[in-house]
Amino acid sequence: MDYLYDLKSFKQQLLFDATIDDTDKFKNIAVAGMGGSGIAAMIFHELYSKKPVALVNDYHIPDYVSSDTLFVAASFSGNTEETITATKEAKARGAWIVTIGTGGTLERYGDQHITIPQKDIQPRSATGYMLMPLINGFDMADKADIKKAYKLLDALDKDNSECLGHAKRIYQARAIPVIFGSHPFKSAAYKWKILFNENSKVIAYSNSFPELNHNDTMALAGTYQKEKLYFFAFDNADARITNRIKVTGEITKTDFNVIRPKGGSTIEKLFYLLHYGAYVSYHLAKLRKMDPTDISLIEDLKKRLKERENVKAP
Amino acid sequence: MDYLYDLKSFKQQLLFDATIDDTDKFKNIAVAGMGGSGIAAMIFHELYSKKPVALVNDYHIPDYVSSDTLFVAASFSGNTEETITATKEAKARGAWIVTIGTGGTLERYGDQHITIPQKDIQPRSATGYMLMPLINGFDMADKADIKKAYKLLDALDKDNSECLGHAKRIYQARAIPVIFGSHPFKSAAYKWKILFNENSKVIAYSNSFPELNHNDTMALAGTYQKEKLYFFAFDNADARITNRIKVTGEITKTDFNVIRPKGGSTIEKLFYLLHYGAYVSYHLAKLRKMDPTDISLIEDLKKRLKERENVKAP
Repeated sequence: MDYLYDLKSFKQQLLFDATIDDTDKFKNIAVAGMGGSGIAAMIFHELYSKKPVALVNDYHIPDYVSSDTLFVAASFSGNTEETITATKEAKARGAWIVTIGTGGTLERYGDQHITIPQKDIQPRSATGYMLMPLINGFDMADKADIKKAYKLLDALDKDNSECLGHAKRIYQARAIPVIFGSHPFKSAAYKWKILFNENSKVIAYSNSFPELNHNDTMALAGTYQKEKLYFFAFDNADARITNRIKVTGEITKTDFNVIRPKGGSTIEKLFYLLHYGAYVSYHLAKLRKMDPTDISLIEDLKKRLKERENVKAP
Repeated sequence: MDYLYDLKSFKQQLLFDATIDDTDKFKNIAVAGMGGSGIAAMIFHELYSKKPVALVNDYHIPDYVSSDTLFVAASFSGNTEETITATKEAKARGAWIVTIGTGGTLERYGDQHITIPQKDIQPRSATGYMLMPLINGFDMADKADIKKAYKLLDALDKDNSECLGHAKRIYQARAIPVIFGSHPFKSAAYKWKILFNENSKVIAYSNSFPELNHNDTMALAGTYQKEKLYFFAFDNADARITNRIKVTGEITKTDFNVIRPKGGSTIEKLFYLLHYGAYVSYHLAKLRKMDPTDISLIEDLKKRLKERENVKAP
């Protein structure tokens, strides 16, 4: 299946009306997922803070996870080793488990299971399906704003020439994309990194304002290889961040490609950014003659890891 | 002051016996700090999870921060804009505030203030002074292990030729260091990134196993510019991670420089890794004829941001 199919389906995910039940019952929340499936967890962790939220993207879960915890685990395949290990542990501690996925073994552990209704897309294209049950369950977006977000994505499907422009400049310089986000779109910047890694098969990294002013800044001025880096900066109309982008660019002589997310609400801006980055990475893959849907090596890795484990088992 | 002075003083910080009082009283914890001062917060967030811990490296604090919260804010200068903003907000919500620093305005907000006893080092060299009050207050390390850690650092001060070797290879390739950590040393990998940025003035980024197997892996196999990257992988003797490093290297044809932290306990390994990375970044700075202690641009940035604010004020 062509990745363009994934891109065209993304706006539909905004309308996914599944919801996590009983979100009020618990004292704290943990959200688990790896890579593309971890992005929904990461975004929720960034947007919601009325109660403590732990982000789990490893085999390990926090010590405090207990029967007071709502534990939400997302895995597109339902077979992600790390997520299953973490979920089993949370279950053993008495947490209430919600699983999100297309099938696999993960759902066996779910006190509630939410089925992703589309299997023929890439795991990293299913962020909407994984995020909306959290958004809906915690009542984090207006229906009207969701409709507006849909329209923004639809417009981007029809005209994404600006994304192609970025891809062309990255391709011509054979550049490493560097994505600088800012609150509440740091996770979106990390999502772009994943998209460049998996779709375009290029190294990329993300950081965020204002944190990067305490580390990357000295490197921006003094590093070698700078002509081989292509910088994005998300500007979300917080005057403090807008200033930081401007001044950092001036004193380090760095040309930031500033991305101003369209829309008024957080949900509009968030989905706009996610979709915009997906198009840039898609176009870069095409220019590099790479298949954006090819993640065969990750499958190969999983197989080889399993073989090694079996050899070692008694 | 030469950065070598900072390096030689680092082991003394292990013996800093200041402690956070009354750690039992609170339902949750938030730890705040930016860049070099944020590393102690990040490490604590990674190591301690008996209660929920929020990491704050922005102007914003979680909604749930209240009188149930122990809020620990670290700033070497005591004048970090973001940390002060976040701490004021936490104070207004009734949180119990502990401040750590050498002076400045931050300590005004502290219900308890811990004074860093050494002013003549770089902020990023003070990680031990900021971390030990947390380690001591939450009873996270044995005295005997701290002594062992001291000896490991002392040995590294006497012979760090291995670190020089890495620095030479990075320098000769004009390479971008990429540091892959793993639990519980993901923050240590991020600390290396900061050290390369600020000491050596080179771009660098970190990620961690197993998360990177869900994103960087495809890029490791398919990216351009790979000869311009220098890969470190921290191997902490967890068989699952050791396998992942090995298999990822094989299938993506990547040459990982594996760093096995010396020592038995977490505190030994952690300080060993931090010190090892500091030496690599120091040697790389020297080879590049860069002054590791020069962070003038960050100071310049702060000044210019302040000027802009003053212009806008009525």
